[in-house]
Amino acid sequence: MKTLKDYSVSFEKLLKEYQFPGTPSNLYDPLSYFMNLGGKRIRPLLTLMSAELFGGQAEEAYPSALSIEFFHNFSLIHDDIMDKAPLRRNQQTVHAKWNDNIAILSGDVLLVKAYQELQRHNPAHVSKLLTIFNKTAVEVCEGQQMDMDFETRSDVSVHEYIDMIRLKTSVLLGGALQMGAIIANATEVDQKLIYDFGVNLGIAFQIQDDILDLYGDPEKFGKQVGGDIITNKKTYLLLKALEVQKGNEVDDMLLIEDMNLKVKKAQEIIKKLGIFDDAQKLKSHYQQKAMTALSLIDVPGEHKNVLIELSDFLFNREV
Amino acid sequence: MKTLKDYSVSFEKLLKEYQFPGTPSNLYDPLSYFMNLGGKRIRPLLTLMSAELFGGQAEEAYPSALSIEFFHNFSLIHDDIMDKAPLRRNQQTVHAKWNDNIAILSGDVLLVKAYQELQRHNPAHVSKLLTIFNKTAVEVCEGQQMDMDFETRSDVSVHEYIDMIRLKTSVLLGGALQMGAIIANATEVDQKLIYDFGVNLGIAFQIQDDILDLYGDPEKFGKQVGGDIITNKKTYLLLKALEVQKGNEVDDMLLIEDMNLKVKKAQEIIKKLGIFDDAQKLKSHYQQKAMTALSLIDVPGEHKNVLIELSDFLFNREV
Repeated sequence: MKTLKDYSVSFEKLLKEYQFPGTPSNLYDPLSYFMNLGGKRIRPLLTLMSAELFGGQAEEAYPSALSIEFFHNFSLIHDDIMDKAPLRRNQQTVHAKWNDNIAILSGDVLLVKAYQELQRHNPAHVSKLLTIFNKTAVEVCEGQQMDMDFETRSDVSVHEYIDMIRLKTSVLLGGALQMGAIIANATEVDQKLIYDFGVNLGIAFQIQDDILDLYGDPEKFGKQVGGDIITNKKTYLLLKALEVQKGNEVDDMLLIEDMNLKVKKAQEIIKKLGIFDDAQKLKSHYQQKAMTALSLIDVPGEHKNVLIELSDFLFNREV
Repeated sequence: MKTLKDYSVSFEKLLKEYQFPGTPSNLYDPLSYFMNLGGKRIRPLLTLMSAELFGGQAEEAYPSALSIEFFHNFSLIHDDIMDKAPLRRNQQTVHAKWNDNIAILSGDVLLVKAYQELQRHNPAHVSKLLTIFNKTAVEVCEGQQMDMDFETRSDVSVHEYIDMIRLKTSVLLGGALQMGAIIANATEVDQKLIYDFGVNLGIAFQIQDDILDLYGDPEKFGKQVGGDIITNKKTYLLLKALEVQKGNEVDDMLLIEDMNLKVKKAQEIIKKLGIFDDAQKLKSHYQQKAMTALSLIDVPGEHKNVLIELSDFLFNREV
């Protein structure tokens, strides 16, 4: 059976062979640059793995894998403008290196390029692929808007937060997997199960991300520990803490001006309120849901190993 | 036979019945607002007319017509950000009424909604529709980038200008028509002819737009006459004038600080250099190419009347 590494090598080769047109260079150079910044390429690997899980060949799923990775990068380019982020993977973002207009337009054309890959599939699959891709793309935009809306709202519930991360980040994992399943002619029941596996895995992963942001090992964590709490970002940990606090201790913590002290205080309070444990439980809950969906898929167990390897890779990281 | 008005009434009804989702309201309210600002809806009407030209029903082409109109409005919303335009059809643009981030993201989701309409077609047509739609969308982005690049270049040729307007504005007319033809199962030869009709019509229309901007009747022209020359916009008239000027008379004109005087001087020089006549001839050349393509289409002549009515409507306006 193929390993995670095997899929990763094939996809990197595919991506390396892909060439954007040469002109207009202000439209396409930013895309060659940005696609080359690297990343784990989790989403397209899921598409390839899913196609093979259901008896197809990874090669048949190459256009959809590229499409998903293009879509993901389109959303990062536009999100970086909206967040005014200067850096991505320690390199300049597109709007910082060029300008906002170029980042808007090259993001737009990258989204179209994502659809252009879809059209390469067998016409018998195109309509179904387009349907799940569109649904996912709309949801990702909705999740991004909810996230932006949360910044200025003071009444965000934990329930809304989970809904936001489901849309903003998790449905794309589910969609990537379902597209592989469609290409391999999986049944609708199996398509639904692999989709659910991806969405629940994504939610669990995002909750882990929130936990690591506050409690990650500073030696291993690539970015500043406590970055979310420093910017008062409404993560699961903070929203839950605001919900269950005794008195105003969480509100008071948010007002601390010394950032090291603020992070230390947040770590203490959130642990004391039992929210560190809650978050671990919630993460396990979604992981469990993902694994249950995977277990119900009607294919030989050993075909599922690489998806379990990928999950382990995602959850055993400390950075 | 149906008239332009008949098609227009049907499409306005279709658009009125279309509902964007209610939430997130910051994502969808800007779209309901912007789609309601009006416009001539030329592009979707072309799709409907083309479907009927080739023996189909306009109703079968409704999803593609909406798709084309959504795409056009997506591009306007993003172009307005890039141009920092405060107004569109005398109303606030999306980025002015909300903000840049909302305009970027609601534009993005409108592009996805354009693709979501395509997926409603008969699966047998989806793949072909997606192919022409994608090709057109990429070209529109390329044209917009070329237009932005021209602003800071001093060596733009007339040839490049025609290529830019072909991509930025004309291929969308061709694409809209070809999509109607695909839906009505037209032959590939006829698809190519109706596409060429649209592209050439679009180029002729843009050249007319350049002429009217400088020589339109101030009484009838909706905006300031000479707007292009005031901002030194590289239109056909200016590029050709720079190419054929004696000495530096055109460069000198561009430096005039009194705007009324500058416009008056530009009108004189460009006419004197024979460029007003050149532009009329070039417009007629593309109109002629359009009409030749239309005449070669293998359907009864009377089916073409409404497309000729639409062309007349576009070219007999003085504003």
